Amino acid sequence: MAKELKGLTKRSVNYSQWYNELVVKADLAEQSPVRGCMVIKPYGYAIWEKMQRALDDMFKETGHENAYFPLLIPKSYLSKEAEHVEGFAKECAVVTHYRLKNAEDGSGIIVDPAAKLEEELIIRPTSETIIWSTYKKWINSYRDLPILCNQWANVMRWEMRTRLFLRTSEFLWQEGHTAHATREEAEEETVKMINVYSNFAENFMAVPVVKGVKSATERFAGALDTYTIEAMMQDGKALQSGTSHFLGQNFAKAFDVQFVDKNNKMNYVWASSWGVSTRLIGALIMSHSDDNGLVLPPKLAPIQVVIVPIYRNEEQLGLINEKVSGIVAKLKSMGVSVKYDNSDNKRPGFKFAEYELKGVPVRLVMGGRDLESNTMEVMRRDTLEKETVSCDNIEAYVFNLLEEIQANIYQKALDFRTKSTRNVESYDEFKVEIEKGGFLMAHWDGTPETEELIKNETKATIRCIPLDGDKTPGKCMVTGKPSARRVMFARAY
Amino acid sequence: MAKELKGLTKRSVNYSQWYNELVVKADLAEQSPVRGCMVIKPYGYAIWEKMQRALDDMFKETGHENAYFPLLIPKSYLSKEAEHVEGFAKECAVVTHYRLKNAEDGSGIIVDPAAKLEEELIIRPTSETIIWSTYKKWINSYRDLPILCNQWANVMRWEMRTRLFLRTSEFLWQEGHTAHATREEAEEETVKMINVYSNFAENFMAVPVVKGVKSATERFAGALDTYTIEAMMQDGKALQSGTSHFLGQNFAKAFDVQFVDKNNKMNYVWASSWGVSTRLIGALIMSHSDDNGLVLPPKLAPIQVVIVPIYRNEEQLGLINEKVSGIVAKLKSMGVSVKYDNSDNKRPGFKFAEYELKGVPVRLVMGGRDLESNTMEVMRRDTLEKETVSCDNIEAYVFNLLEEIQANIYQKALDFRTKSTRNVESYDEFKVEIEKGGFLMAHWDGTPETEELIKNETKATIRCIPLDGDKTPGKCMVTGKPSARRVMFARAY
Repeated sequence: MAKELKGLTKRSVNYSQWYNELVVKADLAEQSPVRGCMVIKPYGYAIWEKMQRALDDMFKETGHENAYFPLLIPKSYLSKEAEHVEGFAKECAVVTHYRLKNAEDGSGIIVDPAAKLEEELIIRPTSETIIWSTYKKWINSYRDLPILCNQWANVMRWEMRTRLFLRTSEFLWQEGHTAHATREEAEEETVKMINVYSNFAENFMAVPVVKGVKSATERFAGALDTYTIEAMMQDGKALQSGTSHFLGQNFAKAFDVQFVDKNNKMNYVWASSWGVSTRLIGALIMSHSDDNGLVLPPKLAPIQVVIVPIYRNEEQLGLINEKVSGIVAKLKSMGVSVKYDNSDNKRPGFKFAEYELKGVPVRLVMGGRDLESNTMEVMRRDTLEKETVSCDNIEAYVFNLLEEIQANIYQKALDFRTKSTRNVESYDEFKVEIEKGGFLMAHWDGTPETEELIKNETKATIRCIPLDGDKTPGKCMVTGKPSARRVMFARAY
Repeated sequence: MAKELKGLTKRSVNYSQWYNELVVKADLAEQSPVRGCMVIKPYGYAIWEKMQRALDDMFKETGHENAYFPLLIPKSYLSKEAEHVEGFAKECAVVTHYRLKNAEDGSGIIVDPAAKLEEELIIRPTSETIIWSTYKKWINSYRDLPILCNQWANVMRWEMRTRLFLRTSEFLWQEGHTAHATREEAEEETVKMINVYSNFAENFMAVPVVKGVKSATERFAGALDTYTIEAMMQDGKALQSGTSHFLGQNFAKAFDVQFVDKNNKMNYVWASSWGVSTRLIGALIMSHSDDNGLVLPPKLAPIQVVIVPIYRNEEQLGLINEKVSGIVAKLKSMGVSVKYDNSDNKRPGFKFAEYELKGVPVRLVMGGRDLESNTMEVMRRDTLEKETVSCDNIEAYVFNLLEEIQANIYQKALDFRTKSTRNVESYDEFKVEIEKGGFLMAHWDGTPETEELIKNETKATIRCIPLDGDKTPGKCMVTGKPSARRVMFARAY
């Protein structure tokens, strides 16, 4: 077994430690010397690139364009939208000076006190304010609308407790910011994008998600409505995986963005914003991976197929190389990313463990006997099942197997979620059930007070009011007051 | 003529103003409220995306992987490489605090003095220091080498005088950082990447470049050698368009990065770094565009072909729509990005001017008579020449025309550069010739003193010691001392 794998804590022993170790051992990311900031290593970044490509294509198919807005935001901008500043402006990186100089005592470099900014600049925690101050210049008439912009960027929130991918001070994300002439259009856009996210989560990440609306307490600061996709991790906790906000006219009013409508009247512009981040990589890991390491959905795996030769001597390796090269070429022509690892500085067993750890969906092995019998051993990472398959048309076999794995890990995650989602009828039952993890569907009276009481007593929050599912009214499990429908509770990352 | 076009200053009147206006009028970028930082608008960003895609493919073909390193760098890191800090650390954005709070007098938000960082953090002006502090953890043995990482990122240098794309405080770029076991390998990598850049500049941007080595004065701070590609703008000034640095063991020594070599000896690692930035968009604009607006090389044009209908009534428009839809579909299937603009809120003449301004390489127009005669009017943006072409197989015609335009604008830029590059034999001649612009090939004694004298007296700098071209020795035009070969002088952006 590979050195790296040896130390991996089992999920059943300590799920949280398993995650932390896996991220590092699988070469996805590591802590940087800067508190709370991560280094995303090439293998982790390759997953992010695949996510970006798929999402970017979906954004463009739905009419969006990319743009880029400044990293730094004048401090005063953050106070322009009253709720926004309360929710966002506090824990952030503040630029106060623009020059360093040599210390006079020769001790190194110091901040030049003469180079103090008149107004401090904030590293963007999110870009609504800088973008709406820009949209003011772009929008005069209804003819200038809609604006459908997205940006891929780094953002920074000074988090006190960080975990790789799940919560880091700096992270990578995309943020869409749209401007519309009517409330209806902006709301439609908000819903459209949460659907894009759930489509991406389910069809690319193989992670089933519950789509819903946040309670007022959990809403984005400055939004009238926040839509969310919530995924269930293997420990039964929820992970908020993407959000889409209907911002009403709040930012348009804060930055005075008005337009002349078709009837020649001045109106404030309607807005949405939406984002997903490198947090999705955390969701991916915690949804599918196991005690042997990562399990990656084929659609996002940097390497989909690895081929390892087992050989007695150079001559045999030569024959295997020749045989394999045709298979590699054919797989590549089918759009499959394949790696042939015939490096001689690692033993096959080491390679097996390494590619298992890294979650490569399909492993093919060719040994001397396979060469004679024109076969290969095929192992699928999701179930670890092995089969011996004829080389004739093995490419189609592998291609289908990748699709099967993609479907299977989705189904497995869905089954787990289904099993771990229950209705609870009383608060006493709730308190017992929440200790077991999972999603609890319960009635709630709709007040922030009850929501907070539940949070304080059980550490569970309302993850969302689901868009789909049971909409029967009932009575709040805590206060007995009327409840319009069950909402979804869970402990969350 | 379109409203936007009316105000465009002619190049001959004021080249610099023409550039500034064009960037804004063509919707490429604009100044942001943050001093020196730009907003890259969707049309400008679409060019950058095309550049990124092409470069990224080339990096991957040459064995590189992407990764991501932190935005913020501890202040002390910058002083670890002595020359590096002199060249880089001074004008930069300094983060000193990590929290804001409400002012007690209710006047807004202020920086929380209690949240002062122990060590200030610098927004990366370039990432050698943070990356080499990370590589220290990654490298133990020769088996860990080479490391061939690239990152796409934003960086910040507090520039006093900024111009959109050419020099902005924040800009987007890629920075490659490689680590090698031997000096030869690192040098080979450095040269390989300057070749990738010149290949990209010439074959995608259609911008001819001179490859060469910088003089010691112009070297990257911390490098043993800086390779550069230098392009000539239409005003005869040089624009440094990409650099690749051989860093020797300087950063390995600064961060104590050693490895065990094959002979079991400890050695410092050898390094290269290389980068191009959004400045390339400035180079693109200033190389090809004219008094009517942008001229974009087809390979980087967001829209390669625009089709505009001219119609008398709805019925005719319907017939044109039908006819055009087949052509659009066929062009798309050939990988051509095509826009059919049959919007009814702008007149054809307005559209013509707008797409000229935006540099769309090919325009097709179909009117009523064309419909009858099964033809279209084809206009190529580079020469503004029009032709009437049969619709039969027009797609192949357009496809070839795009290639011809790509080649033609390269040739035009190359001819201009050839014409504007001269040998000068004396310093008196130099002083006269430099006023006319262009590249001057002259003998230099190799000393920083002479270089500085020339710079102070003529504002011309040594752009590079070209890799190719005349290598005959001679005598320095200023001092008469021996010169190994002519070097290339110019005034530069």
